[in-house]
Amino acid sequence: MTIDLLIIHAAELVTPSADSPRPLVGEAFGHPHRIADGAVAVSGGHIVAVGPTDAVMQACPPTAETVVLEASGRLVTPGLVDSHTHAAFAGDRSRDFVARIHGARGDKQMSGGINTTVAATRAAGFDELVTLTGERLARMLAHGTTTAEVKSGYGLDLANERKILQVYAYLAAHQPLTLLPTFLGAHAVPPGFTLETQTEAVLAMLPEVAPLARFVDVFCDEGYFTLDQTRRILQAAQALGLRARIHADELGDVGAAALAAEMGALSADHLLCVSDAGMQAMAAAGVVAIILPGTPFYLNLGRVAPVGRMRELGVPIALSTDFNPGSSFSESLPLMMTLACLHNHMTPGECLTATTHNAAASLGIADQVGRLAPGMQADIVIWDAPSLDYLPSHFGVNLVETVIKSGRIVVGG
Amino acid sequence: MTIDLLIIHAAELVTPSADSPRPLVGEAFGHPHRIADGAVAVSGGHIVAVGPTDAVMQACPPTAETVVLEASGRLVTPGLVDSHTHAAFAGDRSRDFVARIHGARGDKQMSGGINTTVAATRAAGFDELVTLTGERLARMLAHGTTTAEVKSGYGLDLANERKILQVYAYLAAHQPLTLLPTFLGAHAVPPGFTLETQTEAVLAMLPEVAPLARFVDVFCDEGYFTLDQTRRILQAAQALGLRARIHADELGDVGAAALAAEMGALSADHLLCVSDAGMQAMAAAGVVAIILPGTPFYLNLGRVAPVGRMRELGVPIALSTDFNPGSSFSESLPLMMTLACLHNHMTPGECLTATTHNAAASLGIADQVGRLAPGMQADIVIWDAPSLDYLPSHFGVNLVETVIKSGRIVVGG
Repeated sequence: MTIDLLIIHAAELVTPSADSPRPLVGEAFGHPHRIADGAVAVSGGHIVAVGPTDAVMQACPPTAETVVLEASGRLVTPGLVDSHTHAAFAGDRSRDFVARIHGARGDKQMSGGINTTVAATRAAGFDELVTLTGERLARMLAHGTTTAEVKSGYGLDLANERKILQVYAYLAAHQPLTLLPTFLGAHAVPPGFTLETQTEAVLAMLPEVAPLARFVDVFCDEGYFTLDQTRRILQAAQALGLRARIHADELGDVGAAALAAEMGALSADHLLCVSDAGMQAMAAAGVVAIILPGTPFYLNLGRVAPVGRMRELGVPIALSTDFNPGSSFSESLPLMMTLACLHNHMTPGECLTATTHNAAASLGIADQVGRLAPGMQADIVIWDAPSLDYLPSHFGVNLVETVIKSGRIVVGG
Repeated sequence: MTIDLLIIHAAELVTPSADSPRPLVGEAFGHPHRIADGAVAVSGGHIVAVGPTDAVMQACPPTAETVVLEASGRLVTPGLVDSHTHAAFAGDRSRDFVARIHGARGDKQMSGGINTTVAATRAAGFDELVTLTGERLARMLAHGTTTAEVKSGYGLDLANERKILQVYAYLAAHQPLTLLPTFLGAHAVPPGFTLETQTEAVLAMLPEVAPLARFVDVFCDEGYFTLDQTRRILQAAQALGLRARIHADELGDVGAAALAAEMGALSADHLLCVSDAGMQAMAAAGVVAIILPGTPFYLNLGRVAPVGRMRELGVPIALSTDFNPGSSFSESLPLMMTLACLHNHMTPGECLTATTHNAAASLGIADQVGRLAPGMQADIVIWDAPSLDYLPSHFGVNLVETVIKSGRIVVGG
């Protein structure tokens, strides 16, 4: 076996302690393995050994062809997994941002809001969207994200939803991040439609767009799609082979979390207003709660997702950016870790598991990415940080030194 | 006149509307000049023309030697001025960060706190401090800061305070940022001292360190140096030619803002608990309020500086990072703009004035930096942003494209 890449002498190498693709809960969630003087060996794009440098060097001695990266004084982690992004759109929403400074409320409640972006995205051509979206994916990669779920939802009609999903398909083949596309035709109600007629339109789009998507998502919330509309869309999508995710109970408790459990959804996302019963149902069904702290921060909502109670109930937790132009305009998962530490009282260990293994589990790919372990894809980040605890403590600047995707150095190095 | 550099076709060129080195208040504070299709011409390290591209090109036609930067679709602003940083230290405080997640309160109240950093900084040699501090200044520069006030205060005895100020003197000559050093021997009470014996020690240090500093600063607050101790230190320092700044009324209202006015201080900083009388005194004396939104954010203090009232009273306002390892560990002024928009309801226009001209005024150098105007130092940033409003709306990632310091391209380009 040729060792293509060796990372050695990491001050701290940290990886979730999972031994299966299931999301971690309980003690293991907050306590990833921390290996001092750590090393990783890579061959053929996959990890072949992880452990203390001495042991890895003995098991996998470098040859003349091996690239050896010295990581002394540095933190090494799995590549980050962003499990909730809206990467493809045109236009900007700085007008909404400034309006909120002057007292306008929320974002999704604002007239205009999402539909401002829908109009700009419909007007944009395929090439323009590829360029814009590609720049954002590059920014994610620069901040340590190697896998991203990417939602449609700024088209809202067949032609434009298909255009967005085709942009993702193109970019999946033309840049380093692994992209997992989600059809979110039920993101908002476009001009000329009602919740019910948009539901019908989404049901009609489904057979056309299903081949381009892996997941389906619905915005099930106060003033948005109802439980019944959500159920109909998810059932039809599941019949076509898509797995379900739900924008759930962000603006009010409408029972979307319990619906996620009932429907066997992989994740319920946002959950600022989720009920205890909803969390209990999620824990029982193993639905991953995707915490998006950038959104209440950016919208000044004054409330956060109840991570403490989720922890108690054993709800699996992931952490993502909700990257989008209106309500969380940041590509940086490390900054979301800082926000989760400050506002959700999550520890750095929890943040690491929540942005790697548990995020991968919410995407059904935790057998491939999210951990540093033999057989896993070699997605690895070397950070200009001496420890995991330091990473969220030094905020708002990019501490990534090197990003490795499938064994190849794609940032720094 | 040789035109060395021309920046042309900026989507928006924004500069404070001042016509004097005094800080801006009132209407002018929030409304910098915004020039569409803007241009700047530079000669000999200084700005020679600013305006619409057509007019600047006509007045200052490029020659074969002129470097022409095309900024179409981009925002152009003055280089940012960070008027409150603690850049030189060793060690890290991630332990305090994690302790706060588990419920520990504040930072400066924590036992350990600043003195953890004092111990590490005392143990560090000159070369190590130069390396560590140089990395941080490079990060500031990468985020658009071209001038920084830099405080001592992690030495607290003569040898170590002098070491820190000598680190700044060395770095002032060996990297691009303009550094303005502040002696902050009255930052905390080191082991073995009381507030009073440390006050005496600071008074004794003053003649030795004064040649290395431009300003003096005292932490005048609840549990820290008293009004009387602060007054004695500032008077002695002023007699040696240092100008005064004060860490004022962050933890409680002790009347430090009014003292700043009484002593003719250039700035009073933090001000989370400042009284109305304190703000009125500042307005009357023209003391600049330096708002540091990173600190209450990072320490989860649940209160912010009363910017609305300051605006009403005509207190001049600047905005800075408070960059330090314990209570605001970020070099990014753009992120501070985002926090100021979200938490202090400052507009993007106010944030721009507060991080350029008004910050420069608080340092007594607004005749040299902080504006794009003929005769000013050519410190300029080109941003990957289509407008000023966009800049704070896209947060936690670095939108700097090019930084020009004294007419020379030092980042990007």
